[in-house]
Amino acid sequence: MEYRIEKDLIGSKEIDNSKYYGINTVRALENFDLHSKPVNIDFVKEIALVKKAAAVTNMKLGKLSEQKAEAIIKASEEIIDGFFDDQFKVSAFQGGAGTSVNMNVNEVIANRAIEIIGGKKGDYNIVHPLNDVNMSQSTNDVCPTALKIVTIKKIQKLTNEINKLKEAFELKEAQFSQIFRLGRTQLMDAVPMTVGQGFGSYAKALERDLYRIRETEKNLRNINIGGTAIGTGINSSDRYIFIISDTLRSLTKLNIRRCECSIDGTQNTDVFVEVSSTLKICASSLIKISNDLRILNSGPRGGFGEIILPARQAGSSIMPGKVNPVIPEMVGQISMRVIANDTAITMAASSGQLELNAFIPLIAESMLESLELLEKAAILFREKCIDDILVNEKNCIENLEKSTALVTSLVPFIGYDKACELAKKALREDKSIREILYGEDIYSKEEIDTMLDPSQLIKPSELKDSIRDVS
Amino acid sequence: MEYRIEKDLIGSKEIDNSKYYGINTVRALENFDLHSKPVNIDFVKEIALVKKAAAVTNMKLGKLSEQKAEAIIKASEEIIDGFFDDQFKVSAFQGGAGTSVNMNVNEVIANRAIEIIGGKKGDYNIVHPLNDVNMSQSTNDVCPTALKIVTIKKIQKLTNEINKLKEAFELKEAQFSQIFRLGRTQLMDAVPMTVGQGFGSYAKALERDLYRIRETEKNLRNINIGGTAIGTGINSSDRYIFIISDTLRSLTKLNIRRCECSIDGTQNTDVFVEVSSTLKICASSLIKISNDLRILNSGPRGGFGEIILPARQAGSSIMPGKVNPVIPEMVGQISMRVIANDTAITMAASSGQLELNAFIPLIAESMLESLELLEKAAILFREKCIDDILVNEKNCIENLEKSTALVTSLVPFIGYDKACELAKKALREDKSIREILYGEDIYSKEEIDTMLDPSQLIKPSELKDSIRDVS
Amino acid sequence: MEYRIEKDLIGSKEIDNSKYYGINTVRALENFDLHSKPVNIDFVKEIALVKKAAAVTNMKLGKLSEQKAEAIIKASEEIIDGFFDDQFKVSAFQGGAGTSVNMNVNEVIANRAIEIIGGKKGDYNIVHPLNDVNMSQSTNDVCPTALKIVTIKKIQKLTNEINKLKEAFELKEAQFSQIFRLGRTQLMDAVPMTVGQGFGSYAKALERDLYRIRETEKNLRNINIGGTAIGTGINSSDRYIFIISDTLRSLTKLNIRRCECSIDGTQNTDVFVEVSSTLKICASSLIKISNDLRILNSGPRGGFGEIILPARQAGSSIMPGKVNPVIPEMVGQISMRVIANDTAITMAASSGQLELNAFIPLIAESMLESLELLEKAAILFREKCIDDILVNEKNCIENLEKSTALVTSLVPFIGYDKACELAKKALREDKSIREILYGEDIYSKEEIDTMLDPSQLIKPSELKDSIRDVS
Amino acid sequence: MEYRIEKDLIGSKEIDNSKYYGINTVRALENFDLHSKPVNIDFVKEIALVKKAAAVTNMKLGKLSEQKAEAIIKASEEIIDGFFDDQFKVSAFQGGAGTSVNMNVNEVIANRAIEIIGGKKGDYNIVHPLNDVNMSQSTNDVCPTALKIVTIKKIQKLTNEINKLKEAFELKEAQFSQIFRLGRTQLMDAVPMTVGQGFGSYAKALERDLYRIRETEKNLRNINIGGTAIGTGINSSDRYIFIISDTLRSLTKLNIRRCECSIDGTQNTDVFVEVSSTLKICASSLIKISNDLRILNSGPRGGFGEIILPARQAGSSIMPGKVNPVIPEMVGQISMRVIANDTAITMAASSGQLELNAFIPLIAESMLESLELLEKAAILFREKCIDDILVNEKNCIENLEKSTALVTSLVPFIGYDKACELAKKALREDKSIREILYGEDIYSKEEIDTMLDPSQLIKPSELKDSIRDVS
Repeated sequence: MEYRIEKDLIGSKEIDNSKYYGINTVRALENFDLHSKPVNIDFVKEIALVKKAAAVTNMKLGKLSEQKAEAIIKASEEIIDGFFDDQFKVSAFQGGAGTSVNMNVNEVIANRAIEIIGGKKGDYNIVHPLNDVNMSQSTNDVCPTALKIVTIKKIQKLTNEINKLKEAFELKEAQFSQIFRLGRTQLMDAVPMTVGQGFGSYAKALERDLYRIRETEKNLRNINIGGTAIGTGINSSDRYIFIISDTLRSLTKLNIRRCECSIDGTQNTDVFVEVSSTLKICASSLIKISNDLRILNSGPRGGFGEIILPARQAGSSIMPGKVNPVIPEMVGQISMRVIANDTAITMAASSGQLELNAFIPLIAESMLESLELLEKAAILFREKCIDDILVNEKNCIENLEKSTALVTSLVPFIGYDKACELAKKALREDKSIREILYGEDIYSKEEIDTMLDPSQLIKPSELKDSIRDVS
Repeated sequence: MEYRIEKDLIGSKEIDNSKYYGINTVRALENFDLHSKPVNIDFVKEIALVKKAAAVTNMKLGKLSEQKAEAIIKASEEIIDGFFDDQFKVSAFQGGAGTSVNMNVNEVIANRAIEIIGGKKGDYNIVHPLNDVNMSQSTNDVCPTALKIVTIKKIQKLTNEINKLKEAFELKEAQFSQIFRLGRTQLMDAVPMTVGQGFGSYAKALERDLYRIRETEKNLRNINIGGTAIGTGINSSDRYIFIISDTLRSLTKLNIRRCECSIDGTQNTDVFVEVSSTLKICASSLIKISNDLRILNSGPRGGFGEIILPARQAGSSIMPGKVNPVIPEMVGQISMRVIANDTAITMAASSGQLELNAFIPLIAESMLESLELLEKAAILFREKCIDDILVNEKNCIENLEKSTALVTSLVPFIGYDKACELAKKALREDKSIREILYGEDIYSKEEIDTMLDPSQLIKPSELKDSIRDVS
Repeated sequence: MEYRIEKDLIGSKEIDNSKYYGINTVRALENFDLHSKPVNIDFVKEIALVKKAAAVTNMKLGKLSEQKAEAIIKASEEIIDGFFDDQFKVSAFQGGAGTSVNMNVNEVIANRAIEIIGGKKGDYNIVHPLNDVNMSQSTNDVCPTALKIVTIKKIQKLTNEINKLKEAFELKEAQFSQIFRLGRTQLMDAVPMTVGQGFGSYAKALERDLYRIRETEKNLRNINIGGTAIGTGINSSDRYIFIISDTLRSLTKLNIRRCECSIDGTQNTDVFVEVSSTLKICASSLIKISNDLRILNSGPRGGFGEIILPARQAGSSIMPGKVNPVIPEMVGQISMRVIANDTAITMAASSGQLELNAFIPLIAESMLESLELLEKAAILFREKCIDDILVNEKNCIENLEKSTALVTSLVPFIGYDKACELAKKALREDKSIREILYGEDIYSKEEIDTMLDPSQLIKPSELKDSIRDVS
Repeated sequence: MEYRIEKDLIGSKEIDNSKYYGINTVRALENFDLHSKPVNIDFVKEIALVKKAAAVTNMKLGKLSEQKAEAIIKASEEIIDGFFDDQFKVSAFQGGAGTSVNMNVNEVIANRAIEIIGGKKGDYNIVHPLNDVNMSQSTNDVCPTALKIVTIKKIQKLTNEINKLKEAFELKEAQFSQIFRLGRTQLMDAVPMTVGQGFGSYAKALERDLYRIRETEKNLRNINIGGTAIGTGINSSDRYIFIISDTLRSLTKLNIRRCECSIDGTQNTDVFVEVSSTLKICASSLIKISNDLRILNSGPRGGFGEIILPARQAGSSIMPGKVNPVIPEMVGQISMRVIANDTAITMAASSGQLELNAFIPLIAESMLESLELLEKAAILFREKCIDDILVNEKNCIENLEKSTALVTSLVPFIGYDKACELAKKALREDKSIREILYGEDIYSKEEIDTMLDPSQLIKPSELKDSIRDVS
């Protein structure tokens, strides 16, 4: 292997000359040798985008030569296009508040830019990773800015999928709008509803989730680029900030803008907790929904058995013919992972100190993981499960007819206490409410059938006029 | 003691006749004998308000006699006015999704209404807790509706206090806008800023918190009253829903309205997770802020010692003269409690099943506690701490002048690597950057003083024109 | 009202002369005016016990006069006996690492001791809250010591109840050992088991919980009394430590001893996280168990309906005759509260800094609440639910017989793939496995009945010899 | 590409014939296409080990031919030796309670065994993934058993590293046992201690962590192999269970044994929550320790500056010469991740239902990640940080001498109130306690020096005899 020697404030190191990264990256690989996931590659690419924007800006301001700037821009674009993914392997859990990943990007761009210009890797007189690539920047404005951009992009992808998932539920709402089933409260038999109404309720929850997640874009759009080390803008300038913000807006097509107070934007990470919190709320909805589907699908014979989830794989290595609700189970696990990530993010954000949060790498990794996992889970949930759900109408009807809670509709006419007696009698005699009522001398069969007609019981209704009050 | 006998579906019980509550409440007191906090009394009062609104509505609809309705209304008002607080002692952690607290209110109102009419407690022929007081209602629409109302009211009180806290920080921002101090990133010496800028950054975070918390009102305004048992509106009617929503809006002066889909509004609790999540984000900000104050106040001699928190009590039973930052410590603990409450709420919300969430009592208790504690903590934080913070200017200046990170401002002129050498030399020789620069033959004293002038370093600046580039 | 004037390092205050507490307590009441729960009274009483032990010790060492010591001892005993509960109202979430509650106890003891000696409250020349009552002590050794003692005592009460709960499950295991039911994995029909086996499994989990909780006593027994301010033992002495540890052991009858390293014992709170973690694990078991009971009890007609939980209260204000599983629901909520408390405790413990953890009041409050709530929940779970559970044998048999997973027992003889075909056929033709097998020409009716006999399928079995392999 | 056709209960699929896995794995890859981490490879390898043990056992019992068994054994060993790592890519977050990873192992072993015997992949008449490889097994006994084995192994590696970390702190305790520094409580100046005492306290906490983590092995040793589908042991036999347990004990050299109640062992996951909880406690200790190091290292000039963490990389892309505590920051983040994983594990464990926990894949992934990350973090913490920590003695002495809390040692002689006055005077006049005392007419210079001698103040001491009581 061929080596080059690089130096930093600590000393010097031999660097494998095939690598585009330099001494800072090598030290980080050693210091954070955790065998863990590397920094999210999409985050890395947005850092490269910021580098490109900075080079454009500094060139315009006459602080960077055209030759250098163009080489930096091209190198950045190559990173964005995925040609250097293997050069970014520093752990996602790195110390240093992101300095290592920023240095990693600086070094890869510098060495690639040097090559573009015609020099040899490591000849930082041609393009310097800090003086040139990192010019007017600090990790502490570059990383939060890039993180906000990548977050907005991932939010847009995620909400797109949540919207489709919501629509899938709405289709089921329409499809099953005429099939009645027994409602349950606290898992106990309650009053009638339609299968469709249940699915409609899931769509409503996801609609709010969608809105909440989208709303977080508002705060994410305020970037602190130009704030440099602590947000005061040392070694930056107002003109630089104006131009680079413009450049980033134009490059990303996102409505991003310089934040009002970069000191705030540098040290506070609440906007990321905000994103994660909305994901956590969505996860909490998805756990509820996926559990509901598993309950309604339970059986197929010894459970509720009212819906039929599509079979996606053999369910057991020992029980032939068993099919399990693997997709909702996966959705549940992803959701718990998202909730756990929110714990990490909340702790990390709370642990910020003075002008910086040292734990932003953990925040970034956890939030981006949540965004990605939820997006994939939403796709699979829809395509592999929701779209193909069927209803077992026979079971729905049977369970509904058996429920003693049907007596509820009589309360306005006979009072709660009398109704209670009838319900207890039905249970005692192992009969349906209908059977009990037929046997009582209160109402005619016609009146009873009206009172127990599920199509009347699934909406606010005024039976008063047609039914005699006997209470 | 005098007793009356009451009956329910399980059997009968002797009830202490001095009590306004009845058999359902007594059973709940026994079943949930946890020696824990009772249901939040403000929540109870909003349930009573819903009862009042229902009575008004049912009277208008001709379903409840004027005599009964007026007695129910009067009894409800007495509860709201606090005359029956001692009648509501069922545990906050009750099973039954709120049925017990709803029954408790029904029974107290019924018995008080009976008295008002001239009857004796327990004579439910006069006013019946279920047929009359609970007419057209279910726990499952009454409790979420009341919970949303009480939440909105507490949010308004809380955000009012967070706003004042934010303003207190802004006052400090202005007050200390001309005092320089050393910025720190990762607790290590960084570049200059003003003490005021630090406080301004706290105000910014709180401003976002304020906005986020307020925004949750949007979803809270959608109430499911009239949805009854599972949201389908069984035993309710469209006219009832229209009138009671109107009545509640007028009684509360809050812009509440019937939710689009009551099935959704009955089973989904994401709006409460939403509220709690915004409180959690705020708590995370408050932990960061309160920790910062404790760090800057550390010492007074062996720490940072740059700000002076007001002394509020003797700090030690053994170390005379010691004063501790007890108010920020309290704020930190309240914040952790709020974060813990969010864990409970997220788990509880995730555990909803089908048409209802059985764990809504835990959600209510945890969310209301968070709202109340944060409000009180915000008041105490402001009055007992922020308002009276002073700065130790001597320490601020000394720490700032010593920082080798001041060399940062030279990077544009001499390059990162040369600047790094100077910083290392300063550390090695135990000198300040200024002293090192004076000793070097690079810049004149005047230039050096310009480059190290903190008033230039706390904002984006273009020293380029005045300083020679020697890199 | 009559007042006395007291002074501290901040200034002086008028104190309501009916109060036994003094200026430090009054300031704490103002500073932490959170309207929250006060410090756990049992914790306060153990602080008083430590004060008593210190007085005994200092008297023996000749540092405290007999008159003072005896008055202090008597006053401490009165607190322990509950005569002064109303004097301890400082918030559980106080800042100051417990200084306020320690001061509160010091002041109440001092003033009561002064009275006992014949003086007037506030005349601290007679007995001084710090010089005398707090002699050789610091909040930082007194509070952790008292907290460990109260924790051990509450652990003993809790584990006693968990043991009884475990035994209640074992009784059900025996009682239902001959009733077969369908096992479910992932809520889907699986192979047979007995109802008793299910209950036995809950007992096993609780047995481990019990052991784990008890094991935490080991670390709790190491107390840091005598470590004073930071654990170095300043203003204390080896003899003092020896005698007071002995005294506390004898007063509490607990096997407590001075910890090896008081600096460790003063700053580290991992032993409390340990306690809370074992409670959290237990809570997690209880959630699983209580959910299982709710699933098996679901219905009564439109659900699993295999067990019958005792009816404890009317379940609905609108649906007559409905009974809900309110006790398991309460247990679930208490468990979530315990898990949430663990979040608070973990955060607080992680936030310790250098020689002390400022957040020990939050740790104390959360841990003691968890211990108390779990104890009460365990009692109610057993008495109000487990003891009276019945089985619906008819449903158990029906669900079991219907399950296609019974085909599992044929796999050793006909292979997985053939068995899978039979299962699918059974589902397709809406028949039981037994019916399908009777119709196939593989095995005789006798062989089939042997293979499907649940009593053979609920334990490891070798049917090999009696059944022909046809695969 | 060459394909083979495989069938399952859903239908048939073309399988890339270069793959050793079959149709079940392919479906799982599609169903859980989350782009996430695959199942932990060490977990996969222990599943292969269980397969080997099952083959050994079934051969001994005459249920599997020697030829088949030996081929299965060889194939399993090849997996264990890492030759097939690329065949195991199903997501760690798979639904199905581990069925997919079990099927994956079954299929890879079957196809490799077929090859070994001389057949072609997919010819399951030669070796069948279920009838042969999975004989007498179920996912539900194989996966928990393998998971316990891999967990024990990882615990042993982790505790080995925590022990070394503890020893590294003990070395520092010894090394700095004679250097005094100011103790701080609540970040405020307190009384003297040695730098070594602080490090000793960290070692103590880690020692308890070590013990707690090791203790979890006790419960992990109970494996449920042979319990098959739900723990009843259907399709297994007592002889099989006896032999396979023996075989596994011998293959692993771990003291594992069949659990008393396999139904318990199949459905309950509390032992994994137990492991994770001890990791969480350790993480909480590590956060505290790493934060302490960052505080003591803060500065180097504008902070505490009492210890010097080794420089491991350049700390800033903008501030030359800045060095950050990147290793403690990494440790903090890993610890927060571990705490977050515990949240996921607790939720997942709580969500178990009846005879199985569907979320065991999430539990496995989260727990194994925590074990691995903590191990690596412990190594890096020791090697890259603790071993090379230095002390800045000058700063230690200066900070100590300035502390007014030194007045504490006078309390036994002059009383708390007088001492308080002196402390306040020292602060007011900007003098040290020593200077104040020299100026007062209470004690001689010699007495004062004795009273303020740090070597006397860092342990329990009896100055009484040598110092006059003037109170």
